[in-house]
Amino acid sequence: MEPVLPAPGEPPGVVVLVGDDEPRGMEAAERLARVRYVRENALAQALPGADAVFVWDFLSGALADAWPAGGGPRWVHIASAGVDRLLFPALVEGDTVVTNSRGIFDEPIAEYVLGLVLALAKDLHSTVRFQGERRWRHRETERIDGARALVVGTGPIGRAIGRRLSAAGLAVTGAGRTAREADPDLGTVVPMEGLDAALAEADYVVLAAPLTARTRGMVDAAALDRMRPSARLINVGRGALVAEADLVKALRAGRIAGAALDVFEDEPLPPSSPLWELPNVIVSPHMSGDVVGWRDELVRLFTDNLGRFAAGRPLRNVVDKRLGYVGSGAPTGTEQTTGIEQRG
Amino acid sequence: MEPVLPAPGEPPGVVVLVGDDEPRGMEAAERLARVRYVRENALAQALPGADAVFVWDFLSGALADAWPAGGGPRWVHIASAGVDRLLFPALVEGDTVVTNSRGIFDEPIAEYVLGLVLALAKDLHSTVRFQGERRWRHRETERIDGARALVVGTGPIGRAIGRRLSAAGLAVTGAGRTAREADPDLGTVVPMEGLDAALAEADYVVLAAPLTARTRGMVDAAALDRMRPSARLINVGRGALVAEADLVKALRAGRIAGAALDVFEDEPLPPSSPLWELPNVIVSPHMSGDVVGWRDELVRLFTDNLGRFAAGRPLRNVVDKRLGYVGSGAPTGTEQTTGIEQRG
Repeated sequence: MEPVLPAPGEPPGVVVLVGDDEPRGMEAAERLARVRYVRENALAQALPGADAVFVWDFLSGALADAWPAGGGPRWVHIASAGVDRLLFPALVEGDTVVTNSRGIFDEPIAEYVLGLVLALAKDLHSTVRFQGERRWRHRETERIDGARALVVGTGPIGRAIGRRLSAAGLAVTGAGRTAREADPDLGTVVPMEGLDAALAEADYVVLAAPLTARTRGMVDAAALDRMRPSARLINVGRGALVAEADLVKALRAGRIAGAALDVFEDEPLPPSSPLWELPNVIVSPHMSGDVVGWRDELVRLFTDNLGRFAAGRPLRNVVDKRLGYVGSGAPTGTEQTTGIEQRG
Repeated sequence: MEPVLPAPGEPPGVVVLVGDDEPRGMEAAERLARVRYVRENALAQALPGADAVFVWDFLSGALADAWPAGGGPRWVHIASAGVDRLLFPALVEGDTVVTNSRGIFDEPIAEYVLGLVLALAKDLHSTVRFQGERRWRHRETERIDGARALVVGTGPIGRAIGRRLSAAGLAVTGAGRTAREADPDLGTVVPMEGLDAALAEADYVVLAAPLTARTRGMVDAAALDRMRPSARLINVGRGALVAEADLVKALRAGRIAGAALDVFEDEPLPPSSPLWELPNVIVSPHMSGDVVGWRDELVRLFTDNLGRFAAGRPLRNVVDKRLGYVGSGAPTGTEQTTGIEQRG
């Protein structure tokens, strides 16, 4: 692979894929590069000759269809942590470097998960529903202290969740590709193959794993059967980690006690979904990581990487395209070697 | 004051004031004493000759009306932390020892408060309302990390709240009778006279003070005016700490951003209250400390004190009747001298 260097004397050409909303604060990026903003329908025309793509509309899957047959731009950056919607065979197999927005969502999502745990333990969702009916209905609630949380996913988001839940008094274990003991953020980490036993012990099962071929549908009827009848499922990863129809059945049958879901197989969640109405379910619209200022953070991270790209320096958050996420060992949000230089 | 000792050879007589629900697990108490369970309407008849009263129906104010003119039983224990509903002049001025259920609610309430902070920061109440309408409405939320919480009340409940909020990343200060620096649970504690300045700096104002003549109505229009327009009020103390009509006005005018209230001037909150419908308010039915098993804990604490009473030993959680709460320096839930022996 050739080193990623712009042609001498010429700023790189960047295509920004936008949807209904466009990034603000792109002035610095526009000083570094020739930037074009295009929507899905103009993407195919804009790609040839572009050096990089910034996928601002991270819900779009348009890049796959628009990708030039002979290979596309040298660099694709996405304004999300997950790259499941982005990756397609030609991109995975080609030389294009993919970077993501890892690091921006970790702490916000961790706070959100703690909020969901507390909402479920304290029955806050029922409280809000009773309030809407002006009904004063006292109930007994649960402690979170000492409750057992299993965090599935040992990336930076899962780690931030582990730290927050531990600080709040929960007993945390993790599940990931590699088993280990005494992990600083997650304590004992069980391998995915040992998930069944871990599921049976958890009061809260928190999904923070990337969506890959290995994790798709991992929480199915069999996994839900392993969970305790008093347990709750929290999903802030990707909807397709869960077999949603199985989950609905398990909730209706009382095989688990509840769920708080921020992500879904189809988003927006269709109005016809039974999840909206199940009394023991909290449905939130894929917003767990989106704190005030998140768009600015996303633009800042891209701009930083664009400066690196323009100078031929290592990019941050290079995705291992075979794994489907930034590989382990890469510290969150810090500089890392892209592999471009190493192999270039 | 005479030492509290039962007549030799005779178990003490205990009247338990009950409402619609009665305590379970009283077998141990019934082995220590002659126990009668009475409702409000039979209380006056039952008190003469009784050695002690266990106010299980802690919402009842019946003791004041039923109290014998010549002085009542030697000991009154209440199944709540607050004694504001219990105290009346003849009780305060007489020799009767009052004990409360301090210690049982501290950690449950602290967890609940953290849940309310997160619900407000993450707009969970709106999420539940949108869910009821099957509406997918993405919003940006707030971080709690670094947010400033002012905890009003430095008793064990306020301290537990301070510890929990600090562990969750908030910057905590306290307000209480006595100013101090570097408090282990609350950091800087400002005196009540310095409350105005502290109110102006807080993102979350948490009320966990006892209701006394000094604290009644402390959060009035003037105090609300001191608060930041982005601030939220959380009340898990007593409703009458807040001038409710002033709060409704402040919320409607947007002078503060929201409130989460577990206690109210009138409980149950009347259906006519505007608080039920304000979009930036969470109304919960006085349940912040009531975790599964709380009734058993209350009975255990009473039974322990009854054993002490029967043996003439110091009681736990003796209330300073002039202050209206267990005085400072008394460790939560541990043995303390009642003053009976000291003065007896």
